[in-house]
Amino acid sequence: MSSTFGHLFCVTNFGESHGPAIGCVIDGCPPGMPLAEADLQHDLDRRRPGTSRHVTQRRESDRVEILSGVYEGQTTGTPIALLIRNEDSKERDYEDLIDTFRPGHADYTYWRKYGRRDPRGGGRSSARLTAPMVAAGAVAKKWLRAKFGTEVRGCMQQLGDIEIPFVSWAEVETNAFFAPNSRLVARLEEAMDALRKSGDSVGARLRVVATGVPVGLGAPLAAKLDADIAHAMMAINAVKGVEIGAGFAAVPQKGSEHGDEMLPDGFATNNAGGVLGGISSGQDIEVSIVLKPTSSIRLPRRSITRAGAPTIVETHGRHDPCVGIRATPIAEAMLALVLMDHALLHRAQNGDVSHEIPAIAARAATPGNS
Amino acid sequence: MSSTFGHLFCVTNFGESHGPAIGCVIDGCPPGMPLAEADLQHDLDRRRPGTSRHVTQRRESDRVEILSGVYEGQTTGTPIALLIRNEDSKERDYEDLIDTFRPGHADYTYWRKYGRRDPRGGGRSSARLTAPMVAAGAVAKKWLRAKFGTEVRGCMQQLGDIEIPFVSWAEVETNAFFAPNSRLVARLEEAMDALRKSGDSVGARLRVVATGVPVGLGAPLAAKLDADIAHAMMAINAVKGVEIGAGFAAVPQKGSEHGDEMLPDGFATNNAGGVLGGISSGQDIEVSIVLKPTSSIRLPRRSITRAGAPTIVETHGRHDPCVGIRATPIAEAMLALVLMDHALLHRAQNGDVSHEIPAIAARAATPGNS
Amino acid sequence: MSSTFGHLFCVTNFGESHGPAIGCVIDGCPPGMPLAEADLQHDLDRRRPGTSRHVTQRRESDRVEILSGVYEGQTTGTPIALLIRNEDSKERDYEDLIDTFRPGHADYTYWRKYGRRDPRGGGRSSARLTAPMVAAGAVAKKWLRAKFGTEVRGCMQQLGDIEIPFVSWAEVETNAFFAPNSRLVARLEEAMDALRKSGDSVGARLRVVATGVPVGLGAPLAAKLDADIAHAMMAINAVKGVEIGAGFAAVPQKGSEHGDEMLPDGFATNNAGGVLGGISSGQDIEVSIVLKPTSSIRLPRRSITRAGAPTIVETHGRHDPCVGIRATPIAEAMLALVLMDHALLHRAQNGDVSHEIPAIAARAATPGNS
Amino acid sequence: MSSTFGHLFCVTNFGESHGPAIGCVIDGCPPGMPLAEADLQHDLDRRRPGTSRHVTQRRESDRVEILSGVYEGQTTGTPIALLIRNEDSKERDYEDLIDTFRPGHADYTYWRKYGRRDPRGGGRSSARLTAPMVAAGAVAKKWLRAKFGTEVRGCMQQLGDIEIPFVSWAEVETNAFFAPNSRLVARLEEAMDALRKSGDSVGARLRVVATGVPVGLGAPLAAKLDADIAHAMMAINAVKGVEIGAGFAAVPQKGSEHGDEMLPDGFATNNAGGVLGGISSGQDIEVSIVLKPTSSIRLPRRSITRAGAPTIVETHGRHDPCVGIRATPIAEAMLALVLMDHALLHRAQNGDVSHEIPAIAARAATPGNS
Repeated sequence: MSSTFGHLFCVTNFGESHGPAIGCVIDGCPPGMPLAEADLQHDLDRRRPGTSRHVTQRRESDRVEILSGVYEGQTTGTPIALLIRNEDSKERDYEDLIDTFRPGHADYTYWRKYGRRDPRGGGRSSARLTAPMVAAGAVAKKWLRAKFGTEVRGCMQQLGDIEIPFVSWAEVETNAFFAPNSRLVARLEEAMDALRKSGDSVGARLRVVATGVPVGLGAPLAAKLDADIAHAMMAINAVKGVEIGAGFAAVPQKGSEHGDEMLPDGFATNNAGGVLGGISSGQDIEVSIVLKPTSSIRLPRRSITRAGAPTIVETHGRHDPCVGIRATPIAEAMLALVLMDHALLHRAQNGDVSHEIPAIAARAATPGNS
Repeated sequence: MSSTFGHLFCVTNFGESHGPAIGCVIDGCPPGMPLAEADLQHDLDRRRPGTSRHVTQRRESDRVEILSGVYEGQTTGTPIALLIRNEDSKERDYEDLIDTFRPGHADYTYWRKYGRRDPRGGGRSSARLTAPMVAAGAVAKKWLRAKFGTEVRGCMQQLGDIEIPFVSWAEVETNAFFAPNSRLVARLEEAMDALRKSGDSVGARLRVVATGVPVGLGAPLAAKLDADIAHAMMAINAVKGVEIGAGFAAVPQKGSEHGDEMLPDGFATNNAGGVLGGISSGQDIEVSIVLKPTSSIRLPRRSITRAGAPTIVETHGRHDPCVGIRATPIAEAMLALVLMDHALLHRAQNGDVSHEIPAIAARAATPGNS
Repeated sequence: MSSTFGHLFCVTNFGESHGPAIGCVIDGCPPGMPLAEADLQHDLDRRRPGTSRHVTQRRESDRVEILSGVYEGQTTGTPIALLIRNEDSKERDYEDLIDTFRPGHADYTYWRKYGRRDPRGGGRSSARLTAPMVAAGAVAKKWLRAKFGTEVRGCMQQLGDIEIPFVSWAEVETNAFFAPNSRLVARLEEAMDALRKSGDSVGARLRVVATGVPVGLGAPLAAKLDADIAHAMMAINAVKGVEIGAGFAAVPQKGSEHGDEMLPDGFATNNAGGVLGGISSGQDIEVSIVLKPTSSIRLPRRSITRAGAPTIVETHGRHDPCVGIRATPIAEAMLALVLMDHALLHRAQNGDVSHEIPAIAARAATPGNS
Repeated sequence: MSSTFGHLFCVTNFGESHGPAIGCVIDGCPPGMPLAEADLQHDLDRRRPGTSRHVTQRRESDRVEILSGVYEGQTTGTPIALLIRNEDSKERDYEDLIDTFRPGHADYTYWRKYGRRDPRGGGRSSARLTAPMVAAGAVAKKWLRAKFGTEVRGCMQQLGDIEIPFVSWAEVETNAFFAPNSRLVARLEEAMDALRKSGDSVGARLRVVATGVPVGLGAPLAAKLDADIAHAMMAINAVKGVEIGAGFAAVPQKGSEHGDEMLPDGFATNNAGGVLGGISSGQDIEVSIVLKPTSSIRLPRRSITRAGAPTIVETHGRHDPCVGIRATPIAEAMLALVLMDHALLHRAQNGDVSHEIPAIAARAATPGNS
């Protein structure tokens, strides 16, 4: 089941960058939720290529078609199949590409694993395959919002060596970088223009936060909420690290500093990032991820051919100097998918449980308390 | 399946810290592998409490019994059930414990999720439940070593604010900290003694490396090797972050620095940490994790009771000032389990594929090239 | 995962009878297998409606499009998405249908389970959803044939009260009933014409046989080959019973009659139906299933409305008087899917095992020894 | 996951007939259910060997120990591990056994699949491994009864050629055959004594019924309730066929006879066996299974050795002349496990749905309406 995410809210992804189409099948969605293509298009458009000069210039409208699972505008509880036709995948000569392994790409590992690979635009390893995840994530976001008031939001925290202090979620949607700080946008644009000019690329750090998450999602050991979040995040192209709450900052911390104290009206701090013992605490889920620099760069790179001979690779054409820029809606989607999956898992086993502490329950139920 | 790790090499964990027993069922192990309790005991002893003054003083021999799946000293291909009786779990009054939520622990989230919890020693959320994972990991380590020459090793990289420069794997086993640098041991001991005296605790950073890993383990999207590694690591108690290869250091990196070039005799660098596009490249798998400071400390902490009233928690008794110290064999085990699971998955689908580049194949097959 | 069949060779089905499209995603197919739409069309055409006057007259060309997973005519090892557009699904007024539960159909149970349902042509509960399974089964058949020489074939054994003695597999494809006995075709046609005239329907019994199956597929308990076959067969619309080998005829049998003796050149009989202890023995896999009579009949039937009021249901329009007629390619496909899934599972765990008895191995490897 | 049954209520079975112990891990049980060993012992005793002269004389007390998942007499929601020590497994010489394949047994297939096998008492293929399933089934029965009033009961329908007309469930527990008709017991005893004397064995047909099942369990296609029931039943040792409702009797039925009409107070008949479109209808779940004759008989049988040479096998010692006799509690357990698993799956997805028809809801909720 290498292409299926989730245990109960399952998303099976298919497609290649330059094949006829990409898409996914969402299985396990509760019935009776109003759903239309328009609900999915907003996040697809946020992720879509070509929306600014700082991302790949590939032209895709990323129009999604719902093939099943919706009747008279409502989900029926049966699989929701989503289809996105690839448009800008003009055939060209890939013979050179198939013979050379691009550094930082999956060319070599795919070829060794499968004995063959679809070289067109990265084939199955392309970040284009995150589009169906974003569409599926939009379904999860909608359900979580209606059911619990949960909101899942992401932003750029650092682009290369430029740290981006958080100002507000509102500022995130005002710029192409998903930067929560519009005063830094000019500087980010300059940095990106310089990178593009130099033919190089750079990494990024994103933050994803879920507010209004109910207490009790997750379970010990293999179904820990943070373990499944780590899995989902690391499954995003180019991600090389995942943190929950304090993350690696916890190494030098003292226990007296890290352990979040509890007060009658809730937790005093959130070093845990909203997860204790693998189970959501009702605090904001705080996740941080790193995306490596774009592997396709114009600068010459040493590599080898399938025959093992040395060669030089230079990538021209449309590519993001920072793949992290478009990753914000992707990371949001992955977090939403995990939360929804666990919301269903939780009520399966614990649907009869209701233990609440009035004060904390009230606070946890207030969306947007971050 | 909240207690089962793996897709084909499946480990189902059971038990509570102070219940009658802990253990696991390993399903899917290939037949014909020599196996005895002694094979499992070495790593269990490395993880065992009470082995130095720097870890919890609970007295457990952690003797494992193989209940099934082995006949005449060889695995039969049927489930291998492992049983470890809890010994040092003397009954005492837990009434106070059940009424108070210890900061940083899972007391609150378990109680809210399940409506009840086993408070004895942390119950199911105790790090004691990693013992069966260590035993299962020993099975995976043995198989991987025999089959591919794979070695999985871990060490302490940083304890609190003390960074531990890597000297050699050999030094790791010479001290209680799994420090790969014996010259620092005295300083680590001092730091721990000071912590214990002050009643506080501290975080840690560990490194886990697998050498001799075959090319081709993992698959796109949900079955990415690094995604499954992230899941396994984050499922370890107290882990708050996971990195593969360069990890968060990739944020400020340039693409021309991060992307590992390929030469006829192999990769020039290993920023990728041995995984490209979710598939192992034959390079060393490099993983780094952070463990938060021990939550049980002697210093007074504010918390609340089940009724929501404010209270103060001070933890006396046997506890590690740094839970990260004993986590090295655990992290090794989790990595070994993921690798073995993916080795089986890989040959299921790609058993007929054999595409090799002679030079690189030779290098990848050499164990210990880290 | 209610819509996914299989553990390693996974087929995720989607669609509704009168929605925009039906299809499936096949995940886990080995790479390097030549595959084109034409490979799938043959079995799709065998199942297709409108091919004789004895089956539903709905007009569907059932043209399948491969959306992914194939590059330059070969499978790549990534998901193979298959799409079939629904053509003959003219909108009409379903208001009456949604308000009434048709006897023998899933109308009532869907409505109670999901709180709503897609009433058009049975929606998700339509036998039309077997088309993607047939297409996926064609992939499995092709792989099994190339790898082991396995052949999966089915035929009608009994239609209503007419038993159909087996003559040959060749005769199966010469008539619309998949009857292995062409001399009975005229009688079957008469019986069907009479049924259609009377407005009634009738049940059927089918036989499905796999020859050339390797020894060793399956595993004890939950992964028994026959248990997974029973699951797959009972998942076909209208199936109410499954037998392996002697099946219910084993009730009055003596052990001295039922237990298949072994001779140096193989088994003397096949009461086991090719499965011993849940594991294939190398003999033919013999399966028998019953399909209930078509529920949609012209004769008046008592039912109730959503409000619980009594009503009468008469179904006019295009329907098969015996749904069993078109089920032969479906049952073949389901058996092929289970066998392929288990072939991959087997080599995952036991890829290093090779224990053979020369004489029996030779016999088992001979395709078509039924 | 060859040893794990279920999707959310998961039972992982382990052990061999003559190994140190057998048992299982039940994962996913809702918390807060009173549970003690005594709850499991009743059904274990019904299945236990040595309880009458008509079943195997092996001496096992089958005392079960709960190792985890229960605290202060209530389930905690964490895995419930169950352990049963094997007592009557005296070591003897198995050299002859390991060299010969007993007809009708899994000796040959295990050896070919795994390259080795545990020959002691059938090893993993022994019906002894159904004991942990019976214990797990007792947990499911208890939960289902408390939650819905569901009762799962089984009985012998036919033993060899003796049909046993149903009189009452009460009579089932009054005799060693689970015969629902005490007047036939003398005849059954005679038949069994004659069989034992002749050294032969015979098949059986059992009926299992669940009453008080809520509407809505199951889902289309792969998660059909009847498909999962068929899987569970066929996973029982010696089962060769499964029927739901009318089963194979539906072959000659007309649609006007088979399709169950609906009246304002419920269904008029139950040919469907309580499942429509893979989803429970609220009617009794009616299942029928066949168990083949015991393979171990005293009469001489032809077989071969591992070297392929002809040999004769005669089995002496303790064996049931009809394995079907002890299978009633096993079949009940398997049905209960499937129902509970689907009850959890149902509320995961459809916990917010409540569509009822007052009259039918009332009837369905009445336990024991069979």
